[in-house]
Amino acid sequence: MQLPLADIIVLEFCQYLSGPCAGLRLADLGARVIKIEHPLTGEGGRKLAIKNMWVDDDNSLLFNTINRNKESFAIDMGNAGDMVWLKKLIGKAHVLVHNFRPGAMERKLLGYEDVVKLNPSIVYAQISGYGEAGPLHKKPGQDLLVQSLSGLTYTTGSASDIPTALGLGIGDYLCGNQAVQFIIAALIKSKKTGKGTLLQLSLLESLIDFQFEFFTTYFQSHKMPQRAGFNNAHALLSAPYGIYKTSDGYIAIAMVPIRQLNKILQSKALEQYDEQDCFRKRDEIKKRIAEKIATNTSQYWLQKSKELDLWVMPVLNWKEMSATAGYKVLDMEQTIKLPGNKAFITTRCPVRINGRILKSGKAAPQVGENNAGIKASLS
Amino acid sequence: MQLPLADIIVLEFCQYLSGPCAGLRLADLGARVIKIEHPLTGEGGRKLAIKNMWVDDDNSLLFNTINRNKESFAIDMGNAGDMVWLKKLIGKAHVLVHNFRPGAMERKLLGYEDVVKLNPSIVYAQISGYGEAGPLHKKPGQDLLVQSLSGLTYTTGSASDIPTALGLGIGDYLCGNQAVQFIIAALIKSKKTGKGTLLQLSLLESLIDFQFEFFTTYFQSHKMPQRAGFNNAHALLSAPYGIYKTSDGYIAIAMVPIRQLNKILQSKALEQYDEQDCFRKRDEIKKRIAEKIATNTSQYWLQKSKELDLWVMPVLNWKEMSATAGYKVLDMEQTIKLPGNKAFITTRCPVRINGRILKSGKAAPQVGENNAGIKASLS
Repeated sequence: MQLPLADIIVLEFCQYLSGPCAGLRLADLGARVIKIEHPLTGEGGRKLAIKNMWVDDDNSLLFNTINRNKESFAIDMGNAGDMVWLKKLIGKAHVLVHNFRPGAMERKLLGYEDVVKLNPSIVYAQISGYGEAGPLHKKPGQDLLVQSLSGLTYTTGSASDIPTALGLGIGDYLCGNQAVQFIIAALIKSKKTGKGTLLQLSLLESLIDFQFEFFTTYFQSHKMPQRAGFNNAHALLSAPYGIYKTSDGYIAIAMVPIRQLNKILQSKALEQYDEQDCFRKRDEIKKRIAEKIATNTSQYWLQKSKELDLWVMPVLNWKEMSATAGYKVLDMEQTIKLPGNKAFITTRCPVRINGRILKSGKAAPQVGENNAGIKASLS
Repeated sequence: MQLPLADIIVLEFCQYLSGPCAGLRLADLGARVIKIEHPLTGEGGRKLAIKNMWVDDDNSLLFNTINRNKESFAIDMGNAGDMVWLKKLIGKAHVLVHNFRPGAMERKLLGYEDVVKLNPSIVYAQISGYGEAGPLHKKPGQDLLVQSLSGLTYTTGSASDIPTALGLGIGDYLCGNQAVQFIIAALIKSKKTGKGTLLQLSLLESLIDFQFEFFTTYFQSHKMPQRAGFNNAHALLSAPYGIYKTSDGYIAIAMVPIRQLNKILQSKALEQYDEQDCFRKRDEIKKRIAEKIATNTSQYWLQKSKELDLWVMPVLNWKEMSATAGYKVLDMEQTIKLPGNKAFITTRCPVRINGRILKSGKAAPQVGENNAGIKASLS
């Protein structure tokens, strides 16, 4: 299958998570993604290990996971000879993406205005923490810090909890994903017009967009949404919405009318409430539901829910999830081959194109692995 | 400015959040997005209110927020005359996106195989909860339920908490965003080849991709990542990473070497720990940090952190956030005009293209608002 972005060359001046996430998706869609790295240090993410897990002495598992299916061109941007090669390569590329702090690429004479002179139809995407101007733009654009500024930590956890971070790199991941949207859209335009495009994104703007419901609600009501006091799962939604402890595990209950739910719970205490009470008396109702749910097993409640077609599902961890038939049928795993007969398993690109899933066993490159080939193609 | 997707026509057979999110982004990028709705009921999301907030008698604020900048073509798919109009419109479109349950569009003879006969170069994207086959595919694809199955609820909250839902429609939002990536990429290919493309996405696959660090870590180690016992902010990261209560608010501390941090904390109890301890003794160290942070104000700790350039930031809610100069410089808000001199404020598309932000004041359509114009253009 010819992949949608075959023939597209992307130069990735990126480190850590947000930019490399964007590059990975473009690579999985068929683009040739070339990481531009310093010959001695390589990308900073190579040394960023999660739980101290490494693929070899120089490269962490995390780096390998988000930089598979790419090439590496090692150049020293302080070296005039290297810069000649880089400029030739820029002339042949379709996309340049970077996530340096604002001003860093401009200081290397590789800002948009410089690059578009070398390649008039370039799509140039830059990812920052907080935008390119204003009092925040020089602050560290780290995921937890941006989450904390953005309001996001007041969406999750219950009202009596401290503000609760989402326990993943949500700002990096979202902003990287949105960069991909805008990059591909700009490719369509640059093909039509022959003109370059500058795209500017930031983790903060991505996280504000993600919270559009909360901001829009606040702008209109001038009142801030409040997390439920008990088992919060969405500050804007009413009981029973949430996760409940059973006698042997957990179940999730989504939008289920309270009287429907009580057909399986059969709680006297719940009979007094109707649908109108479910937002106003949310905590009180959720606590009564929780008392009842705790008295029987997950399997019991799931079976009862199934009989009435209620929106209730089990709560699984990664081990339980990856053992289900529903997971296996998705064929989400792929094996990445490493030098020396080693390998590791990771997840694949989350789409089917004409019924086919996209897998690539190609490992992340060593620093400068593709220098010789790239230079030969430019000579 | 000519927007990147000008001239692209998207037919949105979608309801609630995931599909309409995708349509909104495509519209903001310049596509003409036409919602296909039943003349009597309209899209189900029209009646889905958050906090009982409405824009008019028929349409909730939430619906208006994610369906602004679109048109509406109301047809009854059970009516042969209406279907003639719909098929003509399909012939002129570039993209069709739906988020009905698997099989529903096929039963209306509007599955990919039917539609590609009407329009050989169509990009046809379908969003489901759990994929198109296997034991889960007929289950309700609701956000909280998919979160709970996917493992995601074990990333957030601390170890002694029950599994904790992310308090937003993360599965819907992510899958809608990824649909946009793949749709635009497929447009590039269909332009080149003249052939249609079927794209299949699901909330579950998007949420698994989002957790790539957790799944990949689990696949290699066969051990499940454990949330920190105290102030968890990322199960895979070591102390001090987290949010801490000060004497008058909260601050977030990202990756800060423990000895650096102790230069501002000056805690005797922390002197015994070095960097090697920070994962293994994570809870113990975080508790000692918390004790110290609680003794002074946010402003005090932020000032001290600034002096040493440590990665520490304040934790803000929506009201505080939207009052900062750093927020205002982003110009994130836009006003949507409604009939009868009404209006509401929402957030904008999170990108700058050639230095310009994308705003559109166009409100969500009433059901069938564009029928006359669309029929005239097809006659």
